[in-house]
Amino acid sequence: MMGTHRSIYLLLPLVVLLCGEASPSYVYQTKYLDVPLDHFNYVNETVTFKLRYLVNDTYNTDGNGPILFYTGNEGDIELFAQNTGFMWELAPKLKASLVFAEHRFYGKTLPFGNASYDSPQHLGYLTSEQALADFAFLLAEINPINRTTRGRPVVALGGSYGGMLAAWFRMKYPHLVVGAIAASAPIRQFDANCGVFNQILTSVFTVAYTRECSQNIARSWEALKNYSSTADGLKMLQDKFKFCTNVTKAEDITETFFDYLQDVYGNLAMINYPYNSSFLAPVPAYPVREFCGRLAENFTGAELISRLQEALSIYSNYTGQTKCLEISSSYDSSLGDKGWEFQSCTEMLMPMCSEGGGKDMFPKKPWDEKKNSDECFKKFGVRPKPNAAFTMYGGQYLDGVSNIIFSNGLLDPWSGGGVLRSGNSNIKIVLIPEGAHHIDLRAANDNDPGSVREAREIHLLNIQQWLKQFRKAKNFR
Amino acid sequence: MMGTHRSIYLLLPLVVLLCGEASPSYVYQTKYLDVPLDHFNYVNETVTFKLRYLVNDTYNTDGNGPILFYTGNEGDIELFAQNTGFMWELAPKLKASLVFAEHRFYGKTLPFGNASYDSPQHLGYLTSEQALADFAFLLAEINPINRTTRGRPVVALGGSYGGMLAAWFRMKYPHLVVGAIAASAPIRQFDANCGVFNQILTSVFTVAYTRECSQNIARSWEALKNYSSTADGLKMLQDKFKFCTNVTKAEDITETFFDYLQDVYGNLAMINYPYNSSFLAPVPAYPVREFCGRLAENFTGAELISRLQEALSIYSNYTGQTKCLEISSSYDSSLGDKGWEFQSCTEMLMPMCSEGGGKDMFPKKPWDEKKNSDECFKKFGVRPKPNAAFTMYGGQYLDGVSNIIFSNGLLDPWSGGGVLRSGNSNIKIVLIPEGAHHIDLRAANDNDPGSVREAREIHLLNIQQWLKQFRKAKNFR
Repeated sequence: MMGTHRSIYLLLPLVVLLCGEASPSYVYQTKYLDVPLDHFNYVNETVTFKLRYLVNDTYNTDGNGPILFYTGNEGDIELFAQNTGFMWELAPKLKASLVFAEHRFYGKTLPFGNASYDSPQHLGYLTSEQALADFAFLLAEINPINRTTRGRPVVALGGSYGGMLAAWFRMKYPHLVVGAIAASAPIRQFDANCGVFNQILTSVFTVAYTRECSQNIARSWEALKNYSSTADGLKMLQDKFKFCTNVTKAEDITETFFDYLQDVYGNLAMINYPYNSSFLAPVPAYPVREFCGRLAENFTGAELISRLQEALSIYSNYTGQTKCLEISSSYDSSLGDKGWEFQSCTEMLMPMCSEGGGKDMFPKKPWDEKKNSDECFKKFGVRPKPNAAFTMYGGQYLDGVSNIIFSNGLLDPWSGGGVLRSGNSNIKIVLIPEGAHHIDLRAANDNDPGSVREAREIHLLNIQQWLKQFRKAKNFR
Repeated sequence: MMGTHRSIYLLLPLVVLLCGEASPSYVYQTKYLDVPLDHFNYVNETVTFKLRYLVNDTYNTDGNGPILFYTGNEGDIELFAQNTGFMWELAPKLKASLVFAEHRFYGKTLPFGNASYDSPQHLGYLTSEQALADFAFLLAEINPINRTTRGRPVVALGGSYGGMLAAWFRMKYPHLVVGAIAASAPIRQFDANCGVFNQILTSVFTVAYTRECSQNIARSWEALKNYSSTADGLKMLQDKFKFCTNVTKAEDITETFFDYLQDVYGNLAMINYPYNSSFLAPVPAYPVREFCGRLAENFTGAELISRLQEALSIYSNYTGQTKCLEISSSYDSSLGDKGWEFQSCTEMLMPMCSEGGGKDMFPKKPWDEKKNSDECFKKFGVRPKPNAAFTMYGGQYLDGVSNIIFSNGLLDPWSGGGVLRSGNSNIKIVLIPEGAHHIDLRAANDNDPGSVREAREIHLLNIQQWLKQFRKAKNFR
């Protein structure tokens, strides 16, 4: 339950991006390429599907400028193209082309059309390795390289799971990509301490306004549980929160609502941007601070519940237009969710847990590998392979790779699975103390704190350095 | 025809190794591990097969010494274990364990048992990427790595296609392998000039004794063709060469025998070792010199044919015990051949051609991509993907990788597809002017020339360097 809820966190920022404040309307061409369904076997070698990608060539005035390549993640690629403002701001500076490649099984890149999600016989082709091979195949097509022609230099960029893909693309295909900007990419989450996400989350809610905020949250679980155990209590909660579906039994609170609340806290931390943004309904700038401002003193009992409801409205009803509280999901469900759930049930397993007892603000919930595996099997007919990502990509051990920037906002609970240090001088670490989830890839904003501006400067300088290396490498063969 | 003949060259040295002069009888344990049939999709995620690997732990006296890992290629892994003497000589010096991993679809590692070669539905899982993932999976099992335990350092070694795999293993899985010795690994053959193999071959036969050797060979094709055009001529050739199957038509000479001869010349160059070795029948030390010693002056007509037959007997009948000349294949056919043929018909396509007219000693034969593709389709139901290996592994472009030694004997025609130069100082190039095909991986021999001994010294020094890097990398995370 928590496992699956937590595992879809990665998806949320995309929806945020979609609904973010008015972004400039970036213009691109939409193209499709026939790509092999399976790059790693020849069982059905002729089967292909149409991979969607978006191109803007208007800044490539020299004709052979670099290619900035967005390694699309779990969502519609148009979201990324329209909302990764940093790339659009880089393009004129570098006279670069922009390419945004859609990840298989998301957006309009559905290898089996509407049947893509039907069974493991279809969904089974949804893996990160196949997606990276799609990107390589696409690059080979649009930027041909051979013995005598090196092609144009390519820089990979991505955020969240897309940042993981950007980093992995450079690791696995260094001949195709001169470097990668991996923003908020928790490539070490697979074998991280399962509790680190919730510890950081607790810390964010502790320092945002007053420490009472996280203490109130920590106490709220028991209070909610107590109310949920009687009919009167349930009625009181229903009246306070105005759930869209009447709560009628304890589990409606202790399971469904608890999951919802935990998701909301995670979401608030990820979208804790210094300007208004929108997600289902709009949230204000620094929404965690706003939230915690309403829980700034110690509350208990019915007052705690009232204050919690008020604080929650920052997220659920900032405009005051929301009629009732929908807790079955903390965001609009779409095809993309199910895809990421499948990935979490195979190779992208990121165990999550909470310790409670003062170590974090959540009820104690150990990671239950067996239960998670059984749920995956029930849902998709597959079981997670806990070591798959680590064996494939390394996670902790990055000595042999180069030209990757890992940036992490320290206000982002995913930073606990990010690359925050490295003994490899060819890997750059950028910490953004005031940053939430991959804020550095968003368009510049007057309210951006200095650390975010600096991060973008560092990205640009490193990209220029990689391009210089590329031009110098005349004796590469 | 030439394409398929040429494409199986890589297999030959293994057979040579098997039948090489008395090797010390190395001792190892034989083990099996259940490995996923497909590492890159989840369509049939529970299907596994038994991967065979061989282990010797007797030199690992400290218990945590390095692992020398042979990345098995297209043959029975026991051949490699018994005949890669260099690894057995390294082990005591490094207190290392030895692991030899068998390549899927070769030796006893047959995912579908006797039916493994039946159809693309089975053979389709025979790819280099799956083999590398097998090796990674095996290492994860025998040398577990996680967040807090780095495991023992692993060095990959291999020759020929096995050398390609060793290099690629380091490129794709640098977190699992601290470095790789890639001996005679033609990773640039995929997009090399298709004629380079035959040019080097011609050069080897030109400089071995007198230049008349390659000139005689160059003239022999026309002479053979002329004799093959009449019944009397065919009879004369049959009497001279004593073919096991009577030649009855021109094509028996101009196709079957021509292919055989071209294979033999390639084989002779690859096994041009400074000591006796055996292949079908024994050959003397420096067999190309012996061969060319019998073609040391200009010959024509019947005398050219006679001299050619005598020279050929160096290879076909050195002991004088062979009763007739079997030209349908230049070596014992085994399952392994068909596997490599399939790989050549999918991703491991290495175009071959000869130019004739003085540029090489062969009849002109351009590379015919369509014909080759049609033959592959007829044979296996698949068509080659000419760019697959280049897109996957890079070939020419090695800037982003490190800790690989590419060694090449310059007497080896495969060196034309090898890595002979690099602008990347983290890649070491070792040229062995007097070396044939991956001689540096063989056991030390009193007759080894200085350049071979030096190559082995360089290998050892570099491995020690990589191990030192590994030990120093305490802040790797």
